[in-house]
Amino acid sequence: MKISARNQIAGTVKTIKKGPVSTEVVITIAGGGEMVSSITTTSAEKLKLKEGGKVYAIVKASEVMIAID
Amino acid sequence: MKISARNQIAGTVKTIKKGPVSTEVVITIAGGGEMVSSITTTSAEKLKLKEGGKVYAIVKASEVMIAID
Amino acid sequence: MKISARNQIAGTVKTIKKGPVSTEVVITIAGGGEMVSSITTTSAEKLKLKEGGKVYAIVKASEVMIAID
Amino acid sequence: MKISARNQIAGTVKTIKKGPVSTEVVITIAGGGEMVSSITTTSAEKLKLKEGGKVYAIVKASEVMIAID
Amino acid sequence: MKISARNQIAGTVKTIKKGPVSTEVVITIAGGGEMVSSITTTSAEKLKLKEGGKVYAIVKASEVMIAID
Amino acid sequence: MKISARNQIAGTVKTIKKGPVSTEVVITIAGGGEMVSSITTTSAEKLKLKEGGKVYAIVKASEVMIAID
Repeated sequence: MKISARNQIAGTVKTIKKGPVSTEVVITIAGGGEMVSSITTTSAEKLKLKEGGKVYAIVKASEVMIAID
Repeated sequence: MKISARNQIAGTVKTIKKGPVSTEVVITIAGGGEMVSSITTTSAEKLKLKEGGKVYAIVKASEVMIAID
Repeated sequence: MKISARNQIAGTVKTIKKGPVSTEVVITIAGGGEMVSSITTTSAEKLKLKEGGKVYAIVKASEVMIAID
Repeated sequence: MKISARNQIAGTVKTIKKGPVSTEVVITIAGGGEMVSSITTTSAEKLKLKEGGKVYAIVKASEVMIAID
Repeated sequence: MKISARNQIAGTVKTIKKGPVSTEVVITIAGGGEMVSSITTTSAEKLKLKEGGKVYAIVKASEVMIAID
Repeated sequence: MKISARNQIAGTVKTIKKGPVSTEVVITIAGGGEMVSSITTTSAEKLKLKEGGKVYAIVKASEVMIAID
């Protein structure tokens, strides 16, 4: 499947924090940075996410804001 | 100002494509990747964005999906 | 690629309306309903979307509101 | 009330999974498909959602991505 | 129609800036503040939005970030 | 830090409801209205949010829908 989302950033799962409905996933990306995702716990289980697993952080361009110092 | 958004990724503006209402900004981030943002043209002008400028791509964790191969 | 987004609805492209930065795509889904997507024009071109083409409308669960009459 | 959101899809509540802050609602739509929504538990209670109830899944067009096989 | 979105803020349309696909609407709210919305031009036309018209700005709680000074 | 988000509304934290992953924050804004935000509990803790604290509700323009009566 090829998706329209313009941001598809490769990374590795660092931590997973599961709640009853929502799960927070921290991803280490190239260059040493981190991205954080909040998805449904059902999705996290369907994807069988685990620490150390290879993933992509996917973000639609309209969800990306820009800030300056 | 300090914001709750969990994703705050430093980068450099690569290209700016202005439309009458929306503007697309491509940002080069650490590690060689790219992020793409679509914001209002008014915002792009208020921030005086220009190619080569230092920026942060800001994304709320609830907007980040996860994909696996 | 398998993505965490919980909504992945099959359909057929009905119309495409291209602007300089944003493109609106109307999709006919099973049961006769329609979904409407606004993506970047760059994405629409990369996916080579055309009327009659088979696509999926993808939506993260946290973007779906519920209404009652 | 009439809302600008372009996606307003009629369906029936299939399941409700309540957490302390977030609630996941699965909706059966026409044509046999499903949509999944994550809303605040407060909202789910205010709308008095229950299994079998008639609802609409509401999504802003800018939140809809497109994928192809 | 009653919608799950937790933010429903009454206001008056101040300005409308139409593009071919997206339209930006500035809304004056109680207390003198402003809110800005970007919707599809098709939606703006369907709602027959005009300057001075009474509207509500609707936002899902998961789209609201928090910042501190 | 200056951010592109067009909606930056000053207010005071009224209530905080913490879950294991998500936290709901109700904010009183000027004019007597309220806004509701759902953020990660980690973010709420990093910002040290507490009732009575001064905050801003931040929303990207593309997340704001418009409704009419």
